[in-house]
Amino acid sequence: MANQFCVLLIITFVYVITISSSFKLLPRFPRYNNQNRARIKPFRGDRNEYRYETKFFSQQLDHFSFADLPKFQQRYLINSDHWLGASSLAPIFLYCGNEGDIEWFATNSGFIWDIAPKFGALLVFPEHRYYGESMPYGSRDEAYKNATTLSYLTTEQALADFAVFVTDLKRNLSAEACPVVLFGGSYGGMLAAWMRLKYPHIAIGALASSAPILQFEDIVPPETFYDIASNDFKRESISCFNTIKNSWDAIIAEGQKENGLQQLTKTFHFCRVLNSTDDLSDWLDSAYSYLAMVDYPYPADFMMPLPGHPIREVCRKIDGANSDASILDRIYAGVSVYYNYTGNVDCFELDDDPHGLDGWNWQACTEMVMPMSSSQENSMFPADDFNYSSYKEECWDTFRVNPRPKWATTEFGGHDIETTLKSFGSNIIFSNGLLDPWSGGSVLKNLSDTIVALVTKEGAHHLDLRPSTPNDPKWLVDQREAEIGLIEGWIETYRLEKEAKVSLLKRSW
Amino acid sequence: MANQFCVLLIITFVYVITISSSFKLLPRFPRYNNQNRARIKPFRGDRNEYRYETKFFSQQLDHFSFADLPKFQQRYLINSDHWLGASSLAPIFLYCGNEGDIEWFATNSGFIWDIAPKFGALLVFPEHRYYGESMPYGSRDEAYKNATTLSYLTTEQALADFAVFVTDLKRNLSAEACPVVLFGGSYGGMLAAWMRLKYPHIAIGALASSAPILQFEDIVPPETFYDIASNDFKRESISCFNTIKNSWDAIIAEGQKENGLQQLTKTFHFCRVLNSTDDLSDWLDSAYSYLAMVDYPYPADFMMPLPGHPIREVCRKIDGANSDASILDRIYAGVSVYYNYTGNVDCFELDDDPHGLDGWNWQACTEMVMPMSSSQENSMFPADDFNYSSYKEECWDTFRVNPRPKWATTEFGGHDIETTLKSFGSNIIFSNGLLDPWSGGSVLKNLSDTIVALVTKEGAHHLDLRPSTPNDPKWLVDQREAEIGLIEGWIETYRLEKEAKVSLLKRSW
Repeated sequence: MANQFCVLLIITFVYVITISSSFKLLPRFPRYNNQNRARIKPFRGDRNEYRYETKFFSQQLDHFSFADLPKFQQRYLINSDHWLGASSLAPIFLYCGNEGDIEWFATNSGFIWDIAPKFGALLVFPEHRYYGESMPYGSRDEAYKNATTLSYLTTEQALADFAVFVTDLKRNLSAEACPVVLFGGSYGGMLAAWMRLKYPHIAIGALASSAPILQFEDIVPPETFYDIASNDFKRESISCFNTIKNSWDAIIAEGQKENGLQQLTKTFHFCRVLNSTDDLSDWLDSAYSYLAMVDYPYPADFMMPLPGHPIREVCRKIDGANSDASILDRIYAGVSVYYNYTGNVDCFELDDDPHGLDGWNWQACTEMVMPMSSSQENSMFPADDFNYSSYKEECWDTFRVNPRPKWATTEFGGHDIETTLKSFGSNIIFSNGLLDPWSGGSVLKNLSDTIVALVTKEGAHHLDLRPSTPNDPKWLVDQREAEIGLIEGWIETYRLEKEAKVSLLKRSW
Repeated sequence: MANQFCVLLIITFVYVITISSSFKLLPRFPRYNNQNRARIKPFRGDRNEYRYETKFFSQQLDHFSFADLPKFQQRYLINSDHWLGASSLAPIFLYCGNEGDIEWFATNSGFIWDIAPKFGALLVFPEHRYYGESMPYGSRDEAYKNATTLSYLTTEQALADFAVFVTDLKRNLSAEACPVVLFGGSYGGMLAAWMRLKYPHIAIGALASSAPILQFEDIVPPETFYDIASNDFKRESISCFNTIKNSWDAIIAEGQKENGLQQLTKTFHFCRVLNSTDDLSDWLDSAYSYLAMVDYPYPADFMMPLPGHPIREVCRKIDGANSDASILDRIYAGVSVYYNYTGNVDCFELDDDPHGLDGWNWQACTEMVMPMSSSQENSMFPADDFNYSSYKEECWDTFRVNPRPKWATTEFGGHDIETTLKSFGSNIIFSNGLLDPWSGGSVLKNLSDTIVALVTKEGAHHLDLRPSTPNDPKWLVDQREAEIGLIEGWIETYRLEKEAKVSLLKRSW
């Protein structure tokens, strides 16, 4: 019945937004939602220059054991239009594919495409295992069947995939001596930073954009994320912040009335009657969190088509409603900026299967345990204390897996990162925009001369990786120029080293 | 029948030496031979001060997947006699257990025990998984049953074991802030160096003694090992070198005679008749290789009880035999220095099961693929070209596993290590003695200000890790003092960092 309804909607070209609401406790990065693919088309960026070949690489399923397991096909995108070739020691730019379809990330990382000609760089975008088309066991259904088949979906395996992939690629291109520079945003930025630290012989440096590598255990306060997201609203309008903060009780009160859920369904234009007020709260929470991440200074179409400064727009709607509008009408007017900026949506649909097997949730339930709380004092979100027991329980119920909450810091570090990296490692840029709620879990100050932080007050989630536009504010242009300068320096130093070695060899002949 | 024979020998206290001759193609480090345990007692060192508690730690079998696997008990030895405790930020010295019983390594690494009081250090010796008593699946038989059960015997898993173990230990001791310094010799030295590179947040530095981290692929010539071993003999006596070099043909010629194998068995005092001349050649090759490794300047009892400068002694026997002695008589006289220096052995026994499932051979057949050749020109060993196809075939026949010969350099680097580590990483000492045939695959020059090489011309395999003795030559005393000075520097720098941070925190209160 529900399916028939959907089919009908698509046939009649009425737009429906389906939101994949993962369970609230899990950390969320912007993710490409496969279900929206045919409908909202966030896919191709604004421009046509993202041309690439799509190829596949036969990859070990388990790099760290010798169990007899089937190999899988890892997808990668490649563009060599601007590459100056192995003889020029021209660089290879490798984007560390993160938790989604690699085409989505590739076409939303215009910065890399923009700078490729300047660097004469080869571009490669290997996809993260278990996402997009890079499925072990032949299909998504088989890969996501159970905890056993999912068990190789780990960060270390993904990094090893990149290492093996690019080593093989360089060998095939006789480009062993070409320097590799890593790029990544969000979880991909974490991968880029960790890859530079774990595989310094594979890549000479990393631009880790909006990479919350410190969002583990107690390294940063668990309230950081929601506090920053809340402040993004507060700085636009205190009344807007207060309206949202007060709305959660209003939702519960409404839900407790007779026919309250029906009324809420109507107020918020859902296609189907809400099962609980929690579903609505999660839907709103999700919108505000994502809005904080993509609070870009110009119109963009990353997760949703949105205006510039979208939070300002949301608050304008909330604050500017008729004086007799109810608090929930105001909230609806505000959230519609996020879920329905184009105005094409007739009704909203919640995810049918919020607890479905989802790659990032698996990762959050195994290694990527990022404690998150929402405080009574500073946050506009419903108060919520991170409770590891219930987190663990939810993971068990969903995946039949137990998290290893201390493993990420054991494997990758994080505690007292200044002391560790002050005299260890080099050539990492941690770029962050302070509007981004993930910035609180990232590295915001220089750790050494060459492990540096580039922070912009008005930036949001990996804004620097987006393509340059005529609307870019100066601070964004400056940030990208600083990045280009640092990367140039890495490559220059590397080339001088290599050339010194070659001339030394020549002299000794 | 063979077993009864052995039992009889043991009962009557007649000494028999059994050599575990792994297949020749595989690289060999000095290894504790379990079969010799009751007989030659190389175990306790010369002194009584190696007191430790033996404990076990419950360890993940696979750190890099979430497959539902049984945990295993990792053994570790601990001594806190000299530890100044967490409040003093007193260091933790961690010896990276390598391919054998951890008690053997602990009691043959007197240097660490010697310097513990000076540093006020806690000593821990975690055992390498699949060796000694640290057996997955509850027993050696189960752990070594087949390629599936063995599949988690990898270097990355072992490093992760150490990381998880020491993180947990520090937490239990409230010693999170105490610096960890890594030690290791031979493969254990490789582990120490790699651990510092991969887990800089876990350990502040590493003394990697005789660690051939470059003995992979084509980074160093495959002839290195046998060339150095041969030179160790040549420098003592060219005639000795030549006698050995000529002996292989003499052995084959003798073996082809009627009753040749019986005659060779008699000449070399084997308990049982040789099956082939190859068995004899391997037995001799093994002795010469190990002699080169343990060519220490004073009497020692590491693998065998031996005099100081044992190669000199071997050559004295070879060169000094009666002028009418045959070449094989000379060889026998020489090799007896190695296999029977105490004079207690009545007859020698070859390993019953040279192709048995052995931990190091598994590692050599999976990740630790170290190509080795013996050249016609420079080597005194039988000429032998490394042939990967037959290596692979032998691995398949023995373990039903395919090696991944390029994986070690992908995971750990090695190619052009100077460029990689010049501005990446810090605080590693690569110590080597140039008599050691493994030194050719190690790092013999400084890579940066803090990744340094300490090389001694007259040193052999991880001699610096052995206890100090009154017979230590000055260059050895100097080498150890340099090591101590460097380690002191690491700890001092670390403490200053920590204290600066604490006082900064205090000021901001």
